Amino acid sequence: MYVVLVYDISKDENGQKRWSHIFKICKKYLSHIQNSVFEGEISKVQLVKLQQELKVYIDSNLDSVILFKSRQQKWLDKEFWGKEDDKTSFIL
Amino acid sequence: MYVVLVYDISKDENGQKRWSHIFKICKKYLSHIQNSVFEGEISKVQLVKLQQELKVYIDSNLDSVILFKSRQQKWLDKEFWGKEDDKTSFIL
Repeated sequence: MYVVLVYDISKDENGQKRWSHIFKICKKYLSHIQNSVFEGEISKVQLVKLQQELKVYIDSNLDSVILFKSRQQKWLDKEFWGKEDDKTSFIL
Repeated sequence: MYVVLVYDISKDENGQKRWSHIFKICKKYLSHIQNSVFEGEISKVQLVKLQQELKVYIDSNLDSVILFKSRQQKWLDKEFWGKEDDKTSFIL
């Protein structure tokens, strides 16, 4: 399936460290397309693994992680209205 | 159609002001579900209007705005892996 994952990690409670862990985990499974947005094709099994890894770090009182799932990528068009490539990306 | 709009507005070049304008414009057309994420059903005409309004403020060298479009909302499942409601929302 094709997924888009967006997260908003609170700065509270050592948030920078959580953000860094969450970023690294997402990058293992998906492509980074915007500061806090990842996308990509992923299997059900891999998606479960991703969720399990993220659960360790997501603070469910503070952090928001939303996953949009589409069975087929062609059902979802993508448009860039600002800069196209992810100039904010960096290696962790 | 159903859309998900995610933005990342640079803090450079008076970015806070651009962010605030972009937030307000998106809120007129879509529902706010995460810090920089909006979603909702929108007609083609309204989407063009939204894009035209945003174009005034998006700096295409600095800001990233990505729009995911699906012809039908049912083609896109949504899951919350952290907190569900948008506690980061505020009125501008």
